[in-house]
Amino acid sequence: MTSVKAPDTPRDRLLRAAADLFHREGIASTGVERLCQAAGVSKRTMYQLFETKDALVAESLAASGPAILAMHLSEETPGLAPRDRILAVFSRLDEMSRSPGFPGCPFLNTAVELRDPGHPASVVARDHKQRLSDFFAEQARLAGARDPETLAKQLTIVYDGSVGRAVTQGAGLDGLARLTASALLDAQLGTS
Amino acid sequence: MTSVKAPDTPRDRLLRAAADLFHREGIASTGVERLCQAAGVSKRTMYQLFETKDALVAESLAASGPAILAMHLSEETPGLAPRDRILAVFSRLDEMSRSPGFPGCPFLNTAVELRDPGHPASVVARDHKQRLSDFFAEQARLAGARDPETLAKQLTIVYDGSVGRAVTQGAGLDGLARLTASALLDAQLGTS
Repeated sequence: MTSVKAPDTPRDRLLRAAADLFHREGIASTGVERLCQAAGVSKRTMYQLFETKDALVAESLAASGPAILAMHLSEETPGLAPRDRILAVFSRLDEMSRSPGFPGCPFLNTAVELRDPGHPASVVARDHKQRLSDFFAEQARLAGARDPETLAKQLTIVYDGSVGRAVTQGAGLDGLARLTASALLDAQLGTS
Repeated sequence: MTSVKAPDTPRDRLLRAAADLFHREGIASTGVERLCQAAGVSKRTMYQLFETKDALVAESLAASGPAILAMHLSEETPGLAPRDRILAVFSRLDEMSRSPGFPGCPFLNTAVELRDPGHPASVVARDHKQRLSDFFAEQARLAGARDPETLAKQLTIVYDGSVGRAVTQGAGLDGLARLTASALLDAQLGTS
């Protein structure tokens, strides 16, 4: 069971175990004891690396951001129109929502579970949503939207609402995320 | 500090303390000890009244449903058109989102925090969203929407996404919930 990759540091293992457990089981439900056991790290080591559990929540969430954004935004198929780049995000979400036990969006989940906009992890969640919204605004601008900033906020609302629906229903979105985003795009760009 | 109303039963007090604490601070963060203290009820009594904490989570959530639906849906101003009855729900949400420390929607929060569609409280959350969606579908039908069922699901997505945005941003929605619902209504009904 030895790995050919560079060995994980205790910090790597803690960040990975934290991202996984917080996302699957929630933040308050995941005690420090459990976390350290999953990471194979002592509590003493954990507190040497992260001042508090809150800091670990924030850092592990921040660490999962780039991969999630890359997955959503790097639809770099040559010639894909801005409108289609936006819709690709929602198609991907529709698709993800079909996987059994889909746990939703870690950023929305964290903000909702903490319900404290000043918590360092809520700041990370807000930044992530801003980056998604910036992408929508940029593409909407390229597509010639009348009000790209408002459209971007509306699309972010549809993204989070769709995730919320998939989690609440415990079922796939059946194309609703893309369909709803599409209706809002049409309202500003005209049907294509 | 005596009340002129009929005295609360331990069951009433537990349901009220549970709804309040779970909504403000989260489910996993609120221990049974804390809950019983807030309700002024012994743990023994609590477990006589509710078999498990999960049952209390579900029953307290169910108990808050009627008031929330009534607040949103009873805009019975004579002559209010179906389209305006739908939009009134979103205006009310825009307004609620402005209150400092707005804790979001207890039903969405519960489903997101539990991330377990089979949990009895997730079933309550799902039923509540279905009733909201049924109201939207009924009004959309009266307004002559092409596809009232789909429009109702989309409006529910906008509702939950708007709540998610208000919680993530820690700020009011600035009219975005109504604006987004309005764009989706226009898409099916034509601009009014």
